Amino acid sequence: MTQSMMTMVAFLQAQNCSNLVASWRHPDTLLKYDTPEFYQDIARTLERGKFHMAFFDDRLAMPDRYEDNHREAVENGVRTVKLDPTTVLTMMGCVTRRLGLGATYSTTYYEPFHVARVFATLDMLSRGRAAWNVVTSLNDSEAANFGATEHLAHDLRYDRADEFLEVVMGHWSTWEEGALIHDKQSGRFANGEKVRRLDHAGHWFKSRGPFTVPRSKQGHPVLLQAGQSGRGSEFAARWAELVFVIWPNLDVAKKNFADFKSKVVAHRRDPAKVRVVPALYVITGESRAHAEEKKAAIDALVRPIDSLSLLSEVLNFDFSVKKPGDAFTDAELNSISGLRAILDRVVKLSGVSNPTLDDFLKFSGRGTTAELPTFIGTGTDVADQMEAWFKGGACDGFVLAATNMPGSYEDFVDRVVPELQRRSLFQEDYAGATLRENLGLHVPRAGEWKQMYL
Amino acid sequence: MTQSMMTMVAFLQAQNCSNLVASWRHPDTLLKYDTPEFYQDIARTLERGKFHMAFFDDRLAMPDRYEDNHREAVENGVRTVKLDPTTVLTMMGCVTRRLGLGATYSTTYYEPFHVARVFATLDMLSRGRAAWNVVTSLNDSEAANFGATEHLAHDLRYDRADEFLEVVMGHWSTWEEGALIHDKQSGRFANGEKVRRLDHAGHWFKSRGPFTVPRSKQGHPVLLQAGQSGRGSEFAARWAELVFVIWPNLDVAKKNFADFKSKVVAHRRDPAKVRVVPALYVITGESRAHAEEKKAAIDALVRPIDSLSLLSEVLNFDFSVKKPGDAFTDAELNSISGLRAILDRVVKLSGVSNPTLDDFLKFSGRGTTAELPTFIGTGTDVADQMEAWFKGGACDGFVLAATNMPGSYEDFVDRVVPELQRRSLFQEDYAGATLRENLGLHVPRAGEWKQMYL
Repeated sequence: MTQSMMTMVAFLQAQNCSNLVASWRHPDTLLKYDTPEFYQDIARTLERGKFHMAFFDDRLAMPDRYEDNHREAVENGVRTVKLDPTTVLTMMGCVTRRLGLGATYSTTYYEPFHVARVFATLDMLSRGRAAWNVVTSLNDSEAANFGATEHLAHDLRYDRADEFLEVVMGHWSTWEEGALIHDKQSGRFANGEKVRRLDHAGHWFKSRGPFTVPRSKQGHPVLLQAGQSGRGSEFAARWAELVFVIWPNLDVAKKNFADFKSKVVAHRRDPAKVRVVPALYVITGESRAHAEEKKAAIDALVRPIDSLSLLSEVLNFDFSVKKPGDAFTDAELNSISGLRAILDRVVKLSGVSNPTLDDFLKFSGRGTTAELPTFIGTGTDVADQMEAWFKGGACDGFVLAATNMPGSYEDFVDRVVPELQRRSLFQEDYAGATLRENLGLHVPRAGEWKQMYL
Repeated sequence: MTQSMMTMVAFLQAQNCSNLVASWRHPDTLLKYDTPEFYQDIARTLERGKFHMAFFDDRLAMPDRYEDNHREAVENGVRTVKLDPTTVLTMMGCVTRRLGLGATYSTTYYEPFHVARVFATLDMLSRGRAAWNVVTSLNDSEAANFGATEHLAHDLRYDRADEFLEVVMGHWSTWEEGALIHDKQSGRFANGEKVRRLDHAGHWFKSRGPFTVPRSKQGHPVLLQAGQSGRGSEFAARWAELVFVIWPNLDVAKKNFADFKSKVVAHRRDPAKVRVVPALYVITGESRAHAEEKKAAIDALVRPIDSLSLLSEVLNFDFSVKKPGDAFTDAELNSISGLRAILDRVVKLSGVSNPTLDDFLKFSGRGTTAELPTFIGTGTDVADQMEAWFKGGACDGFVLAATNMPGSYEDFVDRVVPELQRRSLFQEDYAGATLRENLGLHVPRAGEWKQMYL
């Protein structure tokens, strides 16, 4: 089920730091996140390195659950600044021709018609390079910015997301291929028989249409997803064409990769057409020792508040109320919500059902490089590790997070990409023009999604 | 109260035609609305011509009320394609350095936190050039795309919009000037005392904050508005910094201009800081006769369906049910909603309280060049007419709609701008870097809006 070549995605944040909060404190990081050039230079580097896609994560609030106050997040730069990701992505699209353009938009706080139009517009104007990361918003802080007192219960969020996808996919199919005529002489602009209303009326949404953006060169934007809980993973298996995962090591990755592909098959979809890319950090140096030194310097930048703020955010629990050695009570663990996979991970790795604050810090890895597998060494060393995962049946490629910006991406493109290309594990050039062509995905006809997904 | 120099704005549509539907049928119009280059070339032309701003109108549906079907709109290209305007605008921002970047976003179907973040992001990344056109959505077709069966009643829409503005302005003020520290050594990212929650809880909205985008170089995006009804005009007088209007001739413009500035004063605001720009078409030629010929050719492209589709859309009434000479009954007139100013105009210009379908077609001007004042002739002729309005106390400048694209903008920049500059009526170069500097507007401090607006 694995591919002959790796799929490579860059994990980006439209904020003051990368996935690693401490990245902003790194001596080599440019604090120019408020300029287009910062993102556009990264985009050019990624396209030089033949990356399939640049992808932006998003949250609709800063992490302010710790001490129920935003002060520590602001003072310490813990994902404090969060820009609108599609605006940043659009600017990256302006200076590239082949790089895929992916961003997160919430199904919890936006309207399907709006999301459909934003991504269809980017898809049209980028000539078929857009991708949408479908998320359900899980933080109480996000809910508070959108007028709700707390986020929607976990499974209900996904029920809503399922219907949200049906509306968006429906709108994207209301214009058939070849609907546009553009005949100035006759005055026929488009074929009225090839544009339809959607007339969706469901449990969560009503939306009539017709949609106002013609079908794109790649049919419609690529669907991305990152659900790892049971319900989230089912959602990804049903809908996603590219799936982001966090798997701690090769053994777990092999098992989870096979499990997930089985779920895809259970949804009567071709597992080869659903790419699974685990997130990782890569730290390269001129020698193995040099790379280890670089990692030590990066780890020294991390502060406990980074982890505490992010854990409080993602689990909707104020970690300031616990002392280091205190075990969480059953009531406290039951009150935890948000990204459940983190709690599962801490329980599993600590081997105790009531972990302590220290267990959370140690085993969640949140806020440190330990959150993701970190491949360290020379370009050859890193390529060896990537090859072991890829050929070992653990993934279809990778999504690369940065420890410093833009250096992480530059180092990877200069040191690792040539080695992967030499081994015929990664493309020497783009396969085509659109993101679907470059990912080897099917270009669906209008309406075909109903047979594929419903 | 008038300015020494004209404010100049380009009226744009992220769609298949300009304000004039027939523009897509014009031999010189490039049907490249699906490419970034089409909009970026216009942006470069506008910046060459020292325009203050490019501005995008928007609607969240195609005009499909006529015959309660979208078929005619699709076949005839009546504003059929509607792209997301901020995506298009962002691409124009990438190739310009001084041009202001304005777009419409609805207060009826979007969330304040989202709108605040989209425009604050564009404002930051464009280095202080963004502007938001605050609209209330008025079409039943738009409502249907967003799950409502009909649009909100007129005055309620504006009540909601008032509170929407309070939330957005509030978020834009949660970061004080100088909050960012960026000290890698101490690890202080920003000053926790200078970032606050909003904690808004009103009738329509709740939103907590803090916002996630620092204050921009120009304080916050410029507020644009186009309300012309009684309630809409009050809303504009309260909030707007630049107001779009449609006034049929110089006499009406003089009166309305003075009336509107009085309303601004009644809101205890400086009328010199609220620019009022009437919309117009400009058709220039090498001679007056040449320009008249061009206009005749343009008018010949207009089809009755253009007007009928747009009238049905904007008044939420299916004009296909009426025969040409039939007078509208009182019941029918009462059932009309949407952009009330058009009904008022038809009643006033026709001189009858129950106009016929023909009256609507003749006096609304909808879908034809007669909808807006059209200045025709050589560059000198057009400059004469613009000077008469500007010096006559009828406006602070103009918003230029196109009859063909990109030709209308190119002709204006090549033929009219130099003549206006020669007369010292229009800037030879931009006054500063941000849109506020270029418009001569106040750069507010964080929180100052409360004294200014509440």
